[in-house]
Amino acid sequence: MARILYDLCGADQRLRFSPFCWRAHMALRHKGLDYEARPWLFTDKDEIAFSVEGDGSKATVPVLVDDDDRVINDSFEILRYLDHAYPDTPLLDQDRAESRARFIKYWSETQVAPAIFRIIILDIFRNLDERDQPYFRESREQRFGVTLEEFHNPDQGREMLDRALTPLRSHLQELPFLDGQTAGGADYIAFGIFMTARVMRGEPLLSGEDVVGQWQDRLLDEFHGFARSATTVRELQAN
Amino acid sequence: MARILYDLCGADQRLRFSPFCWRAHMALRHKGLDYEARPWLFTDKDEIAFSVEGDGSKATVPVLVDDDDRVINDSFEILRYLDHAYPDTPLLDQDRAESRARFIKYWSETQVAPAIFRIIILDIFRNLDERDQPYFRESREQRFGVTLEEFHNPDQGREMLDRALTPLRSHLQELPFLDGQTAGGADYIAFGIFMTARVMRGEPLLSGEDVVGQWQDRLLDEFHGFARSATTVRELQAN
Repeated sequence: MARILYDLCGADQRLRFSPFCWRAHMALRHKGLDYEARPWLFTDKDEIAFSVEGDGSKATVPVLVDDDDRVINDSFEILRYLDHAYPDTPLLDQDRAESRARFIKYWSETQVAPAIFRIIILDIFRNLDERDQPYFRESREQRFGVTLEEFHNPDQGREMLDRALTPLRSHLQELPFLDGQTAGGADYIAFGIFMTARVMRGEPLLSGEDVVGQWQDRLLDEFHGFARSATTVRELQAN
Repeated sequence: MARILYDLCGADQRLRFSPFCWRAHMALRHKGLDYEARPWLFTDKDEIAFSVEGDGSKATVPVLVDDDDRVINDSFEILRYLDHAYPDTPLLDQDRAESRARFIKYWSETQVAPAIFRIIILDIFRNLDERDQPYFRESREQRFGVTLEEFHNPDQGREMLDRALTPLRSHLQELPFLDGQTAGGADYIAFGIFMTARVMRGEPLLSGEDVVGQWQDRLLDEFHGFARSATTVRELQAN
């Protein structure tokens, strides 16, 4: 049985930096499922065109191919699919639990990620495959309305991040995970963007004194240190 | 069997404006439970001193007295208690669902409420019982570090609110409630502060075109329009 996760990579194929793919990685590990993490570039649209309708130009990762013929895209839909297909060890649960995880997804994407991107956007760009750099620059500059260099604003990003993380800090004073005593889907959803920073930045984004940094550490240690062992630009610079 | 909810009120006893008490009101209605909403002033600490340890100076509402002798304070603990004591029609659910609702509580309290207070702080102050005004001014000015008049900043509040509500707007494009297809504990937790604005402001905070305003409208209509029928300063001005 083939299970393939199409997984965005950088100039070095070992750099896996998509926050959305990281949600899928953690979810698959949570379920104890084996899979091939197939490297994919932004410019490899044709390779995953099968995952969307139309001409494939909107295709993006993560894409999960399960059992050779079940195709799921979108990280939240992948987590939902995994809960339906492999009901043991739930990720999202159902109904209101799932709905609240969806809110946490939107909180992460609209409050946390924009802050982190202002800190790491040039780190990402520099470590992309050169075939992806023009596409990344053009698409992101259109989205931002400014150049990557103008968008890059670590001071503003830090201030935004500090404000955005306030509810998570309050939560983590009470509980070790967003999902309570053990890690679950809501944690993986929020964690993805922190892996982007870890992989592409070369230095830690959060300190060990920060309760969010400690939460990140707990997630890095999950599944026998799976995420902690992921290649980062720091290892590549050292070699 | 006596069930009493101690409920903060304003200069007119019909003005019930505490966001935390409103979470409890909606939760009790959700469970279909009858209760007396006993009016309480900030300066009535002695009356609810039984609900805390020590000298009672830290006592605050909501306080729920159930079955004459079970005493619960803190709105989130009241919702948890109601789920344990009356398991039908869950509010929070358990485990990860409850944990995610706790995160939504912190999001509401650290991101939404500070924005709304900058818009309505003087509306609240003006409509307090005169016995509560000195206490409210002193305690809030100590907390804010500035006077109420300096804290009052509707333009800044609007900007903060617009930013804070982004994840909720995204969520409500997909689902009618934070808890999915029907309202639940996460909705009531987030809704409380909007009732504060509605009761004390005299004019709507959100327009009907705003998906968040539409969500608010759905919650105002719950339980046969229970929250919509709550007295606001507008009715008192008209009379």
